[in-house]
Order: sequence, then C-alpha cells, then structure tokens
Amino acid sequence: MRAEIISCGTELLLGHITDTNATYLSQSLATLGIDLYFVSQVGDNQGRIVETLQKAWQRSDLIIMTGGIGPTEDDATRESISALLGEQMQVDPQLEANLRARYTHASRPMPERNVKQATLIPSAQALANPIGSAPGWWVEKDGHIIVAMPGVPREMYRMWEEEVVPKLSAFTGGLIFTRLLRVYGLGEAAVEEELGELIHNTNPTLATYAKNDAVDVRITAKAQTSEEALQLVAEMEERARQILGEHVFGIEGDTLASVIGKALQERGQTLSVMESLTGGQLASTITDFQSSSKHFIGGIVSYSTDVKIQMGVPKETVERYGVISEETARAMATAVRQLLKTDFGIGITGVAGPDKQEEKPVGTVYIAVAGPEGIVTCMGPGWRGGRADNKRHAVLTALNLLRRYLAGTVSPE
Amino acid sequence: MRAEIISCGTELLLGHITDTNATYLSQSLATLGIDLYFVSQVGDNQGRIVETLQKAWQRSDLIIMTGGIGPTEDDATRESISALLGEQMQVDPQLEANLRARYTHASRPMPERNVKQATLIPSAQALANPIGSAPGWWVEKDGHIIVAMPGVPREMYRMWEEEVVPKLSAFTGGLIFTRLLRVYGLGEAAVEEELGELIHNTNPTLATYAKNDAVDVRITAKAQTSEEALQLVAEMEERARQILGEHVFGIEGDTLASVIGKALQERGQTLSVMESLTGGQLASTITDFQSSSKHFIGGIVSYSTDVKIQMGVPKETVERYGVISEETARAMATAVRQLLKTDFGIGITGVAGPDKQEEKPVGTVYIAVAGPEGIVTCMGPGWRGGRADNKRHAVLTALNLLRRYLAGTVSPE
Repeated sequence: MRAEIISCGTELLLGHITDTNATYLSQSLATLGIDLYFVSQVGDNQGRIVETLQKAWQRSDLIIMTGGIGPTEDDATRESISALLGEQMQVDPQLEANLRARYTHASRPMPERNVKQATLIPSAQALANPIGSAPGWWVEKDGHIIVAMPGVPREMYRMWEEEVVPKLSAFTGGLIFTRLLRVYGLGEAAVEEELGELIHNTNPTLATYAKNDAVDVRITAKAQTSEEALQLVAEMEERARQILGEHVFGIEGDTLASVIGKALQERGQTLSVMESLTGGQLASTITDFQSSSKHFIGGIVSYSTDVKIQMGVPKETVERYGVISEETARAMATAVRQLLKTDFGIGITGVAGPDKQEEKPVGTVYIAVAGPEGIVTCMGPGWRGGRADNKRHAVLTALNLLRRYLAGTVSPE
Repeated sequence: MRAEIISCGTELLLGHITDTNATYLSQSLATLGIDLYFVSQVGDNQGRIVETLQKAWQRSDLIIMTGGIGPTEDDATRESISALLGEQMQVDPQLEANLRARYTHASRPMPERNVKQATLIPSAQALANPIGSAPGWWVEKDGHIIVAMPGVPREMYRMWEEEVVPKLSAFTGGLIFTRLLRVYGLGEAAVEEELGELIHNTNPTLATYAKNDAVDVRITAKAQTSEEALQLVAEMEERARQILGEHVFGIEGDTLASVIGKALQERGQTLSVMESLTGGQLASTITDFQSSSKHFIGGIVSYSTDVKIQMGVPKETVERYGVISEETARAMATAVRQLLKTDFGIGITGVAGPDKQEEKPVGTVYIAVAGPEGIVTCMGPGWRGGRADNKRHAVLTALNLLRRYLAGTVSPE
C-alpha cells in the first residue's frame, strides 16, 4: 500500500507553522508498514489542492489529508475531494443534528456557514471528532482511499488513532521494527563505507544520518509477526556492531553525556573539568544529562591564562610549552581533578578562532583526561569550521575520550 | 515569481525529522515578496525526485531544494536535476581541489565517493559552503531557477542568506530592504500587541518571529529606488523603537552576548561568572561572541555546594538562606568578581529540573549581577519548560540583566 500525505493550509506556506502533523503521520505509517513516498503542503486554494490530489490519485493508494475542513470560506478540502471525484456534497441530517447539538449545548448560535461541516459525498463516511466541531471523511472509491482530518494536532491525533488506524488495519500486511545505533568517531561517509554491502540490504534496511552529535545508523525490518521483525533487527544489529566496534556508543535516546554519566554513576565516581576554548560548553553538555548532579562536581572556565594558573596549572608548564599545548591540557586535567577532589578531570585548551594563537591554527585543540589509572590525551584534528563548530567538536571529542577511558579502550599512562 | 520547495530525505518520510527547513524558507520567501504555492517532501529516490521536479518545472519559476547533496549513494539531488535537464555531471577541478584540501587539513583520507560533491552540470554554478563539505548548486535554464542546498539546517541557513538571497534580488520586482530588530523581555504575542496597528501596515510590513534567544521584528519595505526603500524602513524602525523602548537590544546579527561584549570592551571592563543550574551554558554563550577573550576572564561552574563555598561563597549564606536563594546568587556574583578580579560578576542559582530542590519548584532561578556601582538582582519567573529550556531562559535573563545594568536602566544597590 502506497501512501501520500497532503497538508492544507496557507499558514504552512507562510512559515507561520511547521507541519508536525506530517511527522506524526509519517512515524505512524512506518510502524504500520505502509510505504510513504510523498508529502506535500498546499495553501487554502481549491485549484491547487485539486491539482495535488489528481497527482496523488495517479500514484498512491492511500491519500491522507489534514487541514482545510473548518467552516470558513478558505477551508477547501471537502470541496476539492468532491471536485476530484465528481460527486456532490450534501448535508447529512445526522451530522447536522450533532453539530447543532454542540452549539445548543454551548448556548451559542451556530453560524449558518458551519453547516458545511455536516456534509458528505456518496463515497464518504464520517469520521467522528468528539473533541472538535468538524468530523473527518473516509472516502473509498476505485481501490483508492482518501482520509480527510482536521489540521488541529490534538483533534487529528485522536481521529487518526481511534478512527482511521482501526479501519486501515484491514488493508495493511506486516509489521515494522526499527533500531537506532549512535556512532561517534567516524564521519557519515566512513560509516557507510565500513558497513559496505549491508547498506544495500533490503530487509532489514540500514540507513545513516549525520547528526550534530553523532552519526546515527537506523535498522528497519518488516515482517509478518513481531517476533520475526525483532529477530531480523537483532541479527542486523549484531553484524553492524561487529563492524563499527567501539565507535557505537549507544542506542536511541543516548548521548555521549548520558553514556558517561551513567557509567560514572554506576561506579560511584565523580567528574570535574577545566576548559578554555570550549568556554563552558563542555560543562554545559555534561549537565544536559538530567541526573548529572550525582557525578558532576563542577568546572572551571579558565578563559584567561591567569585563571588557569590561579586554579593550579603550573606557571612553568604554560611558559615552557605554551597555553595551546598537550602539556597544558594535561596540567589542566590534573589541576581541576585535585582542586575539586574528583575521580576524573578533563582539560581542554585550543584555538576556537577566528584568529590563530601562539602561531597555532584555528581548530587546534588538545584534550586530556586524568583519572585514577593515569592520563590519556588526544589532539583535535584541526577542524576548519566556524567558532561554534570548533567548540562543539572539541566538546564531543573530549566526552568520547572519557567514554573510551571508562570502557578501557584507551591506555592511560 | 512563483516558488516551490522540494525537501529530499527518506528520514522526513519516516518521521525521524520534521521539515523545519521548509518553515524557515517559507518565512524568508514571504519577506522577499516571492509567492510560495507548493512544498513537497520526497524520499532519497531518484525516480520520485525527478517526478516531483518535473511537476515543479511546469508550474514554478523558482525551485528550492534542500537535502540529498551529501556524498553517499542515497543522496540523489544532483543526479535528479541532471536527469531533469538532460545534462551530464562533471567533476569541477576547483571544487575538487577545495574538497581535497579540507581533508588534507584535517589529516584524514577522503573517501573517493566524496568526489561527487565536487561535480557541476553546464547550467549550474557552485554555491559556497565554508561550514560543510557539500557546495550547493545554482541552476539557471529556460527562465527557471533551481537552487540545491544542504539539508543540515545551519549549513542551509548560511547558504540561503549569504549566497542565494543576494542572487535572487535580481529577479524580484522592485527593491526590497529589510531591517531586523531584536527584542528581549517581551513574548511574541506581547510584542504584536504593543505594535498594534503597525502590524497591519502594507508597506513597510512588520512581522514578528519567536526565536530561541529573542523575539525578532522584521521590517520589510519595497520600493523602486534604494533611497525610497531605506527611508520607508528607517521611519518604521523609529516608530517601532519608540513603542518597544529598551526591550530592543540590537539589530540583525546581534546577540545579547555580542551586545554586552561590545559594551564592556568599549569601557575596558571585564566579566566573570559563577553558575550552577545553567551548568556552564552562561559562560559558553558569552564566549560564543568571537572576541570574548578581551572581556571575559573566566567562570566557575559550581555544580555542587562545596564548590560554591570553596570559591568564596560564605558557608553561612548558604546555610541561612539555602542554595536556591537571592542571597546565594548575590554571594556568587560577589565572590567570583573578587576571585577572578573582574569589574562585573554574574551569579546564577536555581532548579533546572526534573526534580524540585529545597522545596523550590523546577524553573525557580535567582540571578545577580555585581559591578562597580553595586548589585542588581532578578528572579526567574518560574518557567515550566524542560531542563534545556530552563537553562536557556536563565542564561538569557542573566545576560539581559547585565545589559540593562550597562545601559543604566536598572538601579544597583
């Protein structure tokens, strides 16, 4: 079954609202195993809605429409469906009675134009909308289905779940399960290259997505039973994990900060940081994890060199190796660990940009993690992004280094 | 000029992400006076993208595409445009050199498939993307324009503003001038209410946009000459500023952090912070302003109470008034100002969530700014957002309080 979504509303085309209804329906269709190939947003204009409907009618079995079923003149969804199918809208006595009862109950007069919300065409059945005034339409004709629902999200969600999904189940075969793996330390292209032939697999499918804080690998399986779908996903997950190894840091919902937070809390260990180029963003990212106060004690944003020395970095280290050096990063990690009496300390120093510093180019970054078993360090690869990107990369690289320290995949000295 | 947006990406059709790029572009097109009639989301499938492009080519003058220009096999936007126009993709030597230089600089090998990001067709010019690896395409043929941009929002925003909008101005009738006023301290609805009748003005138009860090008021004037358009904008700006008063903190490109940064640097004054609920985000936001090392000395993320006391907050204050109190915020601001020897110090304490603390509800926040003329304080209004929202609101409120201190619109005691 091929589905297509058409969202009606001029406010969508003016950017006043974002079409989150389409996102909701897309997610639901995926779990129902219904293929969705096209989504469109169209203004409140009958000509353009009919044009979009005609195209959809040619290529899709199920057309899901939201919006445009209110009482006002610019609501044109019912009129457009009627025009597409060459059928006449007629007031349905039962729907009209329900509608008038709503107004009577609210002790308000019903504007006469609202009666158009009580209309049907011969191919349409009404979809109940107990939390709004406009019922939806379920239209079946010539092997096609058109569903028209309100644009107001909570009315649409209810109508979809309670009225539409039960009717659709008669038409769908199969169930879908998905699993998301989160990967750090490889770019999106490198992840695809590593996964090789698996990327071309048809069931389950594998797809990669570059996110701000990771590369995501989504595994999606379709099967007749949920056991079978789960089994397919589990096998593919195992293969993907073998290939990507320790670069996989978590699954759906995990972040580097939540993964290290949970690991530290399980061990009953604590963390502090001293950062300069990241300017507080490392501490802020660590504290985005909601129970971070259990393991994160505090941080120093040592933006000036004097603050570094004041907080325990030896002056000789800075003078001998420079502020932008591995030695200073090590000294920062060690100093903050001692100052705030924590099990682990992270130090970051580098050049965020826009100007170079100590003759080191923008994007240079040195990171050190000091812990009970010694120190590990890494050097940033010299990113050439803007200031915000350099900060973000440095934060993620530091968190990933701590994650590897905790996992035992780097050797402290 | 009739425009149409096509967003490419299977993740849109699976509901993994919402098409906020379309919202952004819709808003921008509206201010440019370009009519937008259709928006579509299509999966990463060349056949379906070409089908959508063909329809768009028949009915629209300007086709704006986002997504699908990455290096992987499922990225099919360039291939689809080439198929639509019957032109061959060829590697452009200059683009290839730029791309390889990025990898050389980062000391990473370039996966060979990435070279497809350096291709053009005869009708296409490259659109620069200094913050990502994939350049965009500007295609002009037979009176139509196709623009292809990355799907990653921050790369797309930059490319649209810096590369595409200037090129488009040659095609829009008349001259358009816009001016953006940035407002803090009033919600979007309140700004609209204050502006009253001005919102219904037709030339210049006024539109409000709720952003993460401010409410933006965009003034847009259309005229035959630039002098005329500038004059219209200037008059309306004057009227809006009179109404909104000190809530206007800047214009396009300004942030609260840049405004206070510039003000402090002009005065030759310095700043430090001690923050708990914001967890480093205050310092990080201050250092997002690129020359912040001139005025920002450092920060303390005093996540635990011990760190607060270690850094100079009197133990008696915490014991007597509690950690979540105006008195502790004042003591934090005063302590860090003394510890790091700066002209101004900011203290923030509060409850980020998800759990209440000291019987204070989530969202409670106390902020103090200590400076040469005394201390000013404010209490957060008790936001009921999630953890991330509470952190963000607290950071902005603190920066705004310092801005008002510097502007002399609050009275220190």
